Amino acid sequence: MAKTNPGRFFEDYSVGDVIAHAVPRTVSGGERALYHALYPARHALYSSDEFARACGLKASPIDDLAAFHVVFGKTVPDVSLNALANLGYAEGRWLRPVWPGDTLCSTSEVIGLKQNSNGKSGVVWVRTRGENQHGETVMEYVRWVMVRKRDAAAAAPEPVIPDLKPALAATDLVVPEGLDFSGYDFALAGEAHRWGDYQPGEMIDHVDGVTVEEAEHMMATRLWQNTAKVHFDATLREDGRRLIYGGHVISMARALSFNGLANAQMIVGLNAGAHANPCYSGDTIRAWTEVLERAETPAPGVGALRLRLVATKGGEPFTLRGEDGKYLPHVLLDLDYWALIPM
Amino acid sequence: MAKTNPGRFFEDYSVGDVIAHAVPRTVSGGERALYHALYPARHALYSSDEFARACGLKASPIDDLAAFHVVFGKTVPDVSLNALANLGYAEGRWLRPVWPGDTLCSTSEVIGLKQNSNGKSGVVWVRTRGENQHGETVMEYVRWVMVRKRDAAAAAPEPVIPDLKPALAATDLVVPEGLDFSGYDFALAGEAHRWGDYQPGEMIDHVDGVTVEEAEHMMATRLWQNTAKVHFDATLREDGRRLIYGGHVISMARALSFNGLANAQMIVGLNAGAHANPCYSGDTIRAWTEVLERAETPAPGVGALRLRLVATKGGEPFTLRGEDGKYLPHVLLDLDYWALIPM
Amino acid sequence: MAKTNPGRFFEDYSVGDVIAHAVPRTVSGGERALYHALYPARHALYSSDEFARACGLKASPIDDLAAFHVVFGKTVPDVSLNALANLGYAEGRWLRPVWPGDTLCSTSEVIGLKQNSNGKSGVVWVRTRGENQHGETVMEYVRWVMVRKRDAAAAAPEPVIPDLKPALAATDLVVPEGLDFSGYDFALAGEAHRWGDYQPGEMIDHVDGVTVEEAEHMMATRLWQNTAKVHFDATLREDGRRLIYGGHVISMARALSFNGLANAQMIVGLNAGAHANPCYSGDTIRAWTEVLERAETPAPGVGALRLRLVATKGGEPFTLRGEDGKYLPHVLLDLDYWALIPM
Repeated sequence: MAKTNPGRFFEDYSVGDVIAHAVPRTVSGGERALYHALYPARHALYSSDEFARACGLKASPIDDLAAFHVVFGKTVPDVSLNALANLGYAEGRWLRPVWPGDTLCSTSEVIGLKQNSNGKSGVVWVRTRGENQHGETVMEYVRWVMVRKRDAAAAAPEPVIPDLKPALAATDLVVPEGLDFSGYDFALAGEAHRWGDYQPGEMIDHVDGVTVEEAEHMMATRLWQNTAKVHFDATLREDGRRLIYGGHVISMARALSFNGLANAQMIVGLNAGAHANPCYSGDTIRAWTEVLERAETPAPGVGALRLRLVATKGGEPFTLRGEDGKYLPHVLLDLDYWALIPM
Repeated sequence: MAKTNPGRFFEDYSVGDVIAHAVPRTVSGGERALYHALYPARHALYSSDEFARACGLKASPIDDLAAFHVVFGKTVPDVSLNALANLGYAEGRWLRPVWPGDTLCSTSEVIGLKQNSNGKSGVVWVRTRGENQHGETVMEYVRWVMVRKRDAAAAAPEPVIPDLKPALAATDLVVPEGLDFSGYDFALAGEAHRWGDYQPGEMIDHVDGVTVEEAEHMMATRLWQNTAKVHFDATLREDGRRLIYGGHVISMARALSFNGLANAQMIVGLNAGAHANPCYSGDTIRAWTEVLERAETPAPGVGALRLRLVATKGGEPFTLRGEDGKYLPHVLLDLDYWALIPM
Repeated sequence: MAKTNPGRFFEDYSVGDVIAHAVPRTVSGGERALYHALYPARHALYSSDEFARACGLKASPIDDLAAFHVVFGKTVPDVSLNALANLGYAEGRWLRPVWPGDTLCSTSEVIGLKQNSNGKSGVVWVRTRGENQHGETVMEYVRWVMVRKRDAAAAAPEPVIPDLKPALAATDLVVPEGLDFSGYDFALAGEAHRWGDYQPGEMIDHVDGVTVEEAEHMMATRLWQNTAKVHFDATLREDGRRLIYGGHVISMARALSFNGLANAQMIVGLNAGAHANPCYSGDTIRAWTEVLERAETPAPGVGALRLRLVATKGGEPFTLRGEDGKYLPHVLLDLDYWALIPM
């Protein structure tokens, strides 16, 4: 029997299964420095221990998306090694900050299954939880992927389609313990715009662009211990190109959104996300945001904004779908998330 | 109103203005490791805590130029976003080491203004100070840049040209508290040459070369949170090339100068600097040094050398200017600095 | 006299010489993060402090190969600056884990010399030791290189060829103090295969491939302060290619071997190693392993496997040499090492 991991096929999942993913990971200031080298990240809460302390936290946490990537990376060998497509995200919540020195593990529960009509593949829904060394859940999210069947003749499971919220309500969000924006320093943070300055429907072009390189996306993807071959092996495709990990695009777009959303400090909810088109080395990533919703939170001075973050590799800002309702070819990412911002 | 930062134009500066730059930054062992991955840095004082302790410091500080880049990077959104050229540096001093765990902020005071005769731009002089979390100044320098006017019709300000020293005197230099080279270990440091072995007028070819890559200079420039678009966005220029941050060339040249100046451990003064020609990915950076001046310091065993460090992308070593007095096309950098070296 | 290091030539070595290499190096979580960004490293003992503690160690050590690279890098200016070829390794042993915060130094003793029959070069054997800040040896290995003579007319030294073990015996291996695999968590580690599941003669194709980039191998090689010019300067060769440091291939292959050898956690012995063919940017590195030998150790639950790790840039797995006995052109590395694995 081969000792290497062949990955799971559609038949290998049953609703209710809980998969404990391998390779726990301790994060440190090294991961923080690399995150800042790989993305133009400038949100002050993740850049400065002093700024974070002035906001009621004990230190500057590891970037929310870095925590997401670590938790996500562990799931790849068990969930997406034989995936044909990454279909969506829902009900993502950041429940506690991740601190340098923390060790993260991931588990996923299979919460839905539906064979495709072609009989060759099916959709698997998992709810993934990331835990720290104290057994506390630091984040959770639902992801669904299309997975190949090993044997097209295998019987289809009874379809189970989970009932997922189209978006989290503001009351579902967890504000980190102690967070207090009542003495927030807007000058140090880089922009004067606060919660009340953003109106639902408002569109923000983040202006800047970054042309991405093979070495960068591979370093990022390896750092999160994501093992999907398409990101690393140029011989897998006829055109010799490596597909860039969708999470690299998410982090790049979020970092670019600093310019116009410098005070949208912490990501606390992930409502939905689609990787609309593939991204390759040489593409220049830009981003725009639509403000979707505004909500209050119980924490002092802390408001929440629901934002649509769109990453592109060209095209006009604010263009998203064609007349046929499909994403335009220059759209890379359509992400719906909640962030915390001073009121 | 757009929420993104349009940058300041020439009309937006007044002599005496103090600009508090955004996004404080905590540095750690992660930044140190990245500095060593991005540049062939080998000066022992910045490589080994033990070596630094044997020289009277509490630990190995963050590289002097890394501290400079962090302080400089913060000024970009306020000073050079609309700059047409980075014209010069003067009166740069490193006043205290930066330790892992320190958080740095920057402020700049406008100390000079002079509109160009074409009426479309002007020169802005700023004195920038980097501070740590204790409010102590860790470094300061003067920089002047040519900045576009928003409106060519705007009235010219009264010209104020600051009176800057052509070079710092040795007595202007600040030796880090406790620094003691009397028990310096030359074998561990890598070379036997001490202060008295360098003669004013002496020329040193540093021999080694490094061919630079897009991924590297972008990672470096992002790490210092420098947001100037020309370094990241390949669509900005017709030839699709990204301009490499001048500070990347400074750090590369300084690291290459280890070979021949291994004991010139700490940079304490920046007298002048010119980015003579642009640097692009694929260029092979080399360096040579001219010894300009030798001085004593009050610290035990600690001497100072004033050095001209020249970075090139080809050409013969020790060639600098053409018959017309202009920098030759292969010259990238002409930097005049003071370093501390055992006597 | 030039102040730069010309490197040593064959005549500059005498049997019995001990060379103290320069530039001590403190390692931190930054180096660990970079190691994980540069290689797809997933062995749990080096990824998680918690996992390492559950195995009896005080924390997760710096990767064994990172320690090797740091120790090796220091020897380059004194041993291989004028080397024509890196000929082999033997008797390599890891004697103590390297922890974040440790400072490493290297010394090499010349243990053999033999002039080549052409009179233009000779072979130099050195035994290199890496020490931590407590003066404890953390690793040692023998390396031999072919070095140019400065003067072909110089007299040949009396040949001394050291008596080296073809392979370390299991009893030569040092198991880190406290290591205990009796409560080993195979699920967290990523695979179920234990010591007894591997049979001498068994061949494992590690399946995955990584296409390597210039920026990555240069960052890695600089991080270890390896100064060999061929890795950095594209102008040295007519074809403009940079030769990739052989250690980059070792680390890449070892990380790829996780898939099938996830539990072969710690490297403790290096029996032999050959860099069979050069590696360049754009090559896709793959790896396969042959199980050579199985041994017990005195530590609880800890077994040892002797493994041949072969890295390739194409070709069929398990092909190594042609009919002429020479390495096939697609073979990059043939490494013989001992690893510790739960029984």
